[in-house]
Order: sequence, then C-alpha cells, then structure tokens
Amino acid sequence: MSEVLVEVTRGDLVECCHRGYVAVVNSQGELVYSVGDPYHISYWRSSAKPIQAIPVVESGAMERYGITLKELALFCASHSGEDFHVEGVLGVLKKIDIAPEELRCGSHMPYNKKAEAKLLEKGLAPSNLHCNCSGKHSGMLVVCQQKNYPLDDYTLLEHPLQQELLDLVGEFCNYPKEKIIIGIDGCGVPVYGLPIYNWALAYAYLADPTALEEKRRKTIEIITNAMTDFPEMVGGTDRLCTDLMKVGKGNLIAKAGAEGVYCVGIKDQKLGIAVKMEDGSPRGRAPVVIEVLKQLGALNEEELAQLKNYHYPENRNHRRDLCGMVTPKFTLKKVLA
Amino acid sequence: MSEVLVEVTRGDLVECCHRGYVAVVNSQGELVYSVGDPYHISYWRSSAKPIQAIPVVESGAMERYGITLKELALFCASHSGEDFHVEGVLGVLKKIDIAPEELRCGSHMPYNKKAEAKLLEKGLAPSNLHCNCSGKHSGMLVVCQQKNYPLDDYTLLEHPLQQELLDLVGEFCNYPKEKIIIGIDGCGVPVYGLPIYNWALAYAYLADPTALEEKRRKTIEIITNAMTDFPEMVGGTDRLCTDLMKVGKGNLIAKAGAEGVYCVGIKDQKLGIAVKMEDGSPRGRAPVVIEVLKQLGALNEEELAQLKNYHYPENRNHRRDLCGMVTPKFTLKKVLA
Repeated sequence: MSEVLVEVTRGDLVECCHRGYVAVVNSQGELVYSVGDPYHISYWRSSAKPIQAIPVVESGAMERYGITLKELALFCASHSGEDFHVEGVLGVLKKIDIAPEELRCGSHMPYNKKAEAKLLEKGLAPSNLHCNCSGKHSGMLVVCQQKNYPLDDYTLLEHPLQQELLDLVGEFCNYPKEKIIIGIDGCGVPVYGLPIYNWALAYAYLADPTALEEKRRKTIEIITNAMTDFPEMVGGTDRLCTDLMKVGKGNLIAKAGAEGVYCVGIKDQKLGIAVKMEDGSPRGRAPVVIEVLKQLGALNEEELAQLKNYHYPENRNHRRDLCGMVTPKFTLKKVLA
Repeated sequence: MSEVLVEVTRGDLVECCHRGYVAVVNSQGELVYSVGDPYHISYWRSSAKPIQAIPVVESGAMERYGITLKELALFCASHSGEDFHVEGVLGVLKKIDIAPEELRCGSHMPYNKKAEAKLLEKGLAPSNLHCNCSGKHSGMLVVCQQKNYPLDDYTLLEHPLQQELLDLVGEFCNYPKEKIIIGIDGCGVPVYGLPIYNWALAYAYLADPTALEEKRRKTIEIITNAMTDFPEMVGGTDRLCTDLMKVGKGNLIAKAGAEGVYCVGIKDQKLGIAVKMEDGSPRGRAPVVIEVLKQLGALNEEELAQLKNYHYPENRNHRRDLCGMVTPKFTLKKVLA
C-alpha cells in the first residue's frame, strides 16, 4: 500500500496530496528504511540509465571512438534538449559516423522552456536530438557500432544489445531476469518492471561498487564520476538531477525516471534510495527526494538551503501570489534487522 | 478516504493510479451515488464559474452593455487562449470601456498549443487576455461597472462583488457561508473550500433550476443555455468541457476546475456530479467524468464512442508507440435512502 508522502496546501486547506513508496537499501542488500511497500513493483524507467551505459565502457568503445566522460554523462541523461545537449549528441554520432536519423528515440519539444521557445521562434519542429533520451540512444548506437550489431532494430528486446542490458539489470538489481516485467519506454526501448527495493539496491552498488568484481567496480566508478563531474549533461538548467549532484559534490548519484521515479546513491553512506510516486506526477517527487536525504543526514543545513525550492516548492498562481505550499509529510520507517 | 478511480498501465503492469472522490446528488439534495468520501472538503475552483456569472445577468448589465450569450459563456470559461477567446474578452472590455490592463487575473501561455506557438513565433509574451480566467474577470468588471463598484480591488474578499459571490455560493451549495474555507485562486480571486457533495448539489440546481425562485430559475437557464449553445467559449479546441457539452446537445452542463476538479449537471436526470482527483492531475479526470456519465446512463453508445479518447486515453510515447492505457476502475456506489 502506498502512503501519503506530500501535501499540497492552498490557504488553510490541503487541496491535494501525492502518495508513493520509498525504499532505502545498503550495499549489503539490507533494507534499512521504507515508506509504503518497499517491494512495490513498477517500471524503473530512466533511473536505469547508468546501468544501461555499462556496455559503452566495457566494450572498449570509449577508447576506440574517443568518447569523453562528458559524453558518457549524456548517455545517462534525461536531458532538457538545450543546445549543449543537442550538440553533445551530434558530436557522439559524428565520432561513430552515424546520422541523427538513426536515433530511434522519437522526438518531443525540449523540456527546457527557452530551448522550446527558440525552436518555435524559428518555426522549427523538434528533432530526435531534442528527445530527452537521445543521449542514451546515441550510447546504444556506440555499442552497436563497436560490437557490429545491427543498427536498425536496436530498440527491440530481441536485439543482442537489449539482451545484454536486461542481463545487467537483473545482475545489478539481484533480481531474476525472467521475472522482470518488460514494457515499452517513452523512447521505444524496453523498460524493466521490478520491485523498488531492487532499484535501491542497484543504486547502493553505484554508491559503493566495492561489492562488485574488479572490472565492474572500475566501470561503475567511471560512469558515476562522469555523472557527478558533468551533472549539467545528465539533466540541464534548473533540473533536480543536475542541481542535486552539484550540491552533492560527488557524494550523490541522482537520476530521475518518468512517472514519478527517482533514485539516488549516497557514496559515504553506501546507500541506495528508490522513490516511486503512485500518481506519476513530478510535483511531489522532488520534495520527497530531498526530504529522504535530509532524514538520512545526507544533506547539511547549507545544502538543504540551496535546494529549498525543490524541498518546499511554493504554490504560486498566474499573478505570482503565494497561494500555498508543497510539503513533504512522511517519516522514514527504520526496518529492524 | 479516497479510492482508486483510474489505472495507468504500461504493458502488463499498472504503472500509476489516480485516486479521488465522486458525489452524485439530485435536485432534492439527496446523495444518490458516491465513490470515496462524498463529503471530502476541497476547493471548488473554476467549477464555480457558472455561479460567479449570476450577477452579470441579474444586475441588468447584459441589457445595459449589450453583452451577448456568447460573451456570457466566456464568463463561465477556463478558456484555451485561442484567438476567438482573446477577441471575445477584448470585445467585452470595449463594451464597458475598460482597458485590458484592468484585468487582475495574471497571465500565462495559452492552454492551446497552437496559440502558444503563434505567440512564440512572434516573440510575444502572453497577456492578461490569454489567461484562462480572463473571461471570468471581464464578467466581474462588467458587474463592477454596472454597480459602480471600485475596479482596482475587485479580486479581494472584502470587495462587495466578492461578498455577493460568496453569498451566492453559500446559497447555491446550501452550505453556511461562514463555514466556507477561502483560498486564493490561480487568477487571484477567492476560491471556495467546501464538501464535494455541495458542489454536486449546485450542479443539480443548474440542471434543474425549478427548485429555485422564479427570477433565479430564469437566470440559471440563461447561463446554462449560454454554456451549452457556445461550448467552444467555455473551453476551446480539444477541451473536455467543450466536447462533452457538444456531445451532450444541451443536456449536459460541464465545467472543469484546476487541481482535478470537475462538475457536470445532467438536465434530464436532474442530477449534479462532482469529481475531485486527490493528486490534482488532469490525466485521470476525463476518464472518471465520462465513466460516471456512462454508469449513470447519461451517454449512449454513440456518444461514448465520440468521447472515446477522453474515456480511455492511450498511453503513447515519443515515437507514438502504444505503451499502455488510462482506464477508469471504479463502480458508483448507490447510496440507500
């Protein structure tokens, strides 16, 4: 059962609330805290992207094509479609000699409002490159090029790349891959349905890869360092993932997913956090994520102050009157060993 | 307690759900059906607009200023900011000799995507006129002009117009006005916090005004006929209120409110419906509204087919792949007398 995680007030009344689930797991696989059912099954969505980037590193493609850490961060992104994201993806495609049309992610207006306005001012439609998943797809094409996989059906579950990724997700989440429920993601590739406990476990491994075999440990350090060194590539301007990793100064690995999904790894606590909002709305998600980190002691007062607009968003109207607040309303429950 | 009203699937998994409350009340004031707590208190938001339009009619302002029924429909609108809405509001303001700057509703990009793109293509910011509430505000200014009320503070609860409106809401909802919880609406005017049973009762009176005194009955017929005769003014292109009233052919009076609010009056059944989505998201709302009407027998098979995209929205991704469905999942509970 889900629990109320966030209340949205207007004046003296709670006008709406957002329910969901939280699991906090350490790199020993122990469930440490939870709110609601920590074994609630949902799709991991884009929070799986750091795992999906593993073959880029382990295939040797980075060396062969001269892929940079900044570009690797873009493979883990749900980016805002700003110029530097679009140019980043274009740069990757040039390196592997593949045309942008080969990206099978579909297109949508950039998340970034200024980038959207720029396109509209020029009377332009968004391209595949503006899709928030174009970085991930360019990374998938890098692996296909490196491993000589077919390029035209790389989004299908049967494709060898997607089979590799499914194996990796099962392994990282310590969950039988045949039990993973497969759906279609916003960008057309398979998404992985499994308990949020297992998402949190994967992020605990991202935070503390010492539990993993040597080669994998190094891969994970490369990927998570790329994300925390180039957080603007993982999200964009005024995006939670970017701002949280900036404030976290290398200690926090954060990645959102669609439909109210969020995961964070806390390096110095060797913890992974999974959040799933029941209604899929983004409004409640940021307050929940920051509140979990606060309750875990992973953000100090100064850091919390920098993230205040994510933690306690103001409910302002078209006139900018302050009408109410969005406020987290839960306490992490300690799970007894 | 709220109940699950809608499930959002992706592949074989329910990825999200939307909870809420439904109340169905007849014009005798009897609660006939409900889902969740029918006395849940929330803000009535823009579903109160038909009531807020009453003083325009009863003050004699329509005759004095030559206000048309089409313009009256706009006073009840949360419009999409399309050209015909903006021109409609401008026309009203001209008739009462008030400048658009006097509208205190604030501004936001038009709900209509094409109207937004048009503004952006020209490098223009949205004006007060594009605000979805500009029609209501122009109607408020009509009354102020007619009654010689001050124009500069008409949004404040203390203003005589807002006091009149509060009286009307209390009367129509049969709820003590001193118990109504007041918040600030998206456009700066007071919003009314009261049980959804009472919202539904007001819509039962809109559907069947015979219970009201003669003068009020006529007023209500003028307002609801304006809404059903000019449904494109109440919402806009591809908006539920507009399309539902078109399909309803005069039998249904429908008006959305922000944060997952919706009300419908069914004339031939003398019923009022109130819907409140707990999370405030619009995604679940249309399926709930159509499903309630279906279960009440207020829409036949042909009408339901015309509203299919509202009833069972497809969950499609950036590539237009069909990933899942949004499906209503509740049964109205008959309330025994």
